[in-house]
Amino acid sequence: MSTEFELIESIRRWVDALELNHGVVLGIGDDAAVLQPARGMQLVTTVDALVEGRHFDQRVPTDSIGHMALAVNLSDLAAMGATPRWSLLSLTLPSSDHDWLEAFMRGYLGLSQTHRCALVGGNITRGPLNIAVTAMGEVVEHQWRGRCGAQPGDRIVVTGTLGDAAAALKYDRPELRRRWQQPTPRVAEGQVLAPSARCMTDVSDGLLADLHHLLGAYGAEIDLTALPTAAALAEQLSDTARWPLQLNGGSEYELLAIVPPEVSLPARIGDVPLTVIGRVSQGTGIQAIEPDGRRRALTATGWDHFK
Amino acid sequence: MSTEFELIESIRRWVDALELNHGVVLGIGDDAAVLQPARGMQLVTTVDALVEGRHFDQRVPTDSIGHMALAVNLSDLAAMGATPRWSLLSLTLPSSDHDWLEAFMRGYLGLSQTHRCALVGGNITRGPLNIAVTAMGEVVEHQWRGRCGAQPGDRIVVTGTLGDAAAALKYDRPELRRRWQQPTPRVAEGQVLAPSARCMTDVSDGLLADLHHLLGAYGAEIDLTALPTAAALAEQLSDTARWPLQLNGGSEYELLAIVPPEVSLPARIGDVPLTVIGRVSQGTGIQAIEPDGRRRALTATGWDHFK
Repeated sequence: MSTEFELIESIRRWVDALELNHGVVLGIGDDAAVLQPARGMQLVTTVDALVEGRHFDQRVPTDSIGHMALAVNLSDLAAMGATPRWSLLSLTLPSSDHDWLEAFMRGYLGLSQTHRCALVGGNITRGPLNIAVTAMGEVVEHQWRGRCGAQPGDRIVVTGTLGDAAAALKYDRPELRRRWQQPTPRVAEGQVLAPSARCMTDVSDGLLADLHHLLGAYGAEIDLTALPTAAALAEQLSDTARWPLQLNGGSEYELLAIVPPEVSLPARIGDVPLTVIGRVSQGTGIQAIEPDGRRRALTATGWDHFK
Repeated sequence: MSTEFELIESIRRWVDALELNHGVVLGIGDDAAVLQPARGMQLVTTVDALVEGRHFDQRVPTDSIGHMALAVNLSDLAAMGATPRWSLLSLTLPSSDHDWLEAFMRGYLGLSQTHRCALVGGNITRGPLNIAVTAMGEVVEHQWRGRCGAQPGDRIVVTGTLGDAAAALKYDRPELRRRWQQPTPRVAEGQVLAPSARCMTDVSDGLLADLHHLLGAYGAEIDLTALPTAAALAEQLSDTARWPLQLNGGSEYELLAIVPPEVSLPARIGDVPLTVIGRVSQGTGIQAIEPDGRRRALTATGWDHFK
């Protein structure tokens, strides 16, 4: 067992080795971090906590928990069109297990390095396992995208594929498992999409629940045959079995954007496909368009932590 | 029992009523908050979590827990000489108890209002009670004070009185209890002290443990007769009984500053006394000067969450 200061000293050493200095005036080890946002940029910031039994379970390797904890926050920054810069990590741990911390930080700092996002501070305390990450990013003034502004006729666009994380909880296939346990925040995609989008969010509660946040007073039509589907999921499940997972499965961390009809969209951003899955409509509900053209009302059963 | 979105909607309503808009481009309710740091300012940011049984217990009223959760973070900003601007709140709650949330937020937002520090976002999830607060502040470029730079001959200065919070855990007196359960972050005092100080921190782990962080390669002499003592504490305890509490008691949230000898210091800042309790010395240990002038080596037994 290590002391609190030994754990913090280890983290500081691992962080220093990454040499992520962008805008970091003072990093780990003081009362607070001092950061220098670039001129003309706005600060974008969010916090999310992971709790055992809700966001991960015994099946998830410790390094994946570290990856996941940062990824869910970078996904929120991506959904704003922001560039991740810095993070703060609040760890509540049942014991001072240095091996656990090393594995956790391997996943956390691996993703930090991918996105050049510096860990600049945090806090370790003792108690039931709880991981709260604050992510901070920058965006050119007024270039961020929030959740408001959808108009009838706008296209509904998603990155990547849907339903993989939800399926991974039920079917043990490695390609799906990675999508659940090591989600990829769509950071570059968010920056490309933001200028074209009226509004944007990420699919964390479930496609329908998250879409609902974007629609305001309007409704939507979703073309079920258009839902982008990973090969591994299509092999595993029939269409009618996968649609509910794709419509209501949480923790996908794909981006969901509302794009005006006149804006041209690429088919993919890098390796990641963009798919138009439907349109914003007059009226208030969300309807599915079945393969035979019939319409069916959909109800969001997305995630509520207290249901 | 309320849904997660009902809880968030309540918080948003209470926050909106405060009308704290400084630099808030986009607040609660989106994927992330968007903030506008002022030109020429640096961002100062910190996170701290409170856990039941470690930072508070059943004796602490719920509104005091809310106050405490923000206060410990504002104290870190104060120790940098920063002005609090914004906070993020990550709540992990065993159940969606709206009454508990209302009491908690009363304390949290009461202190938010005192310091004009806007709650701009957060997260609610279910699990064992855990409260992680991220506080963000601003400081004029390079005007912050970290933990480095003490020189032999410098004075060691504290705000307020010491030992009150530690005593409150043992002796049930209302004047002391308030100091433990509703600590006052020394924000204005930090801003006044920063330009005079070489370095600064707050007393969260215990005077000796926190002083140790400031001393670097040097030592210190502490004059026991100079330790500032609240009347309620002096009435309760003899000198020799209170000194250990004053030297090693955590959660005081007074500021501890190292001030060069040539800088003049006021006796108080507003209502809060400033007291010179000793000097930085050559050598590495911390020594107490007893009332009869004898010296005694002191050992920090300050707080380690894993001891």
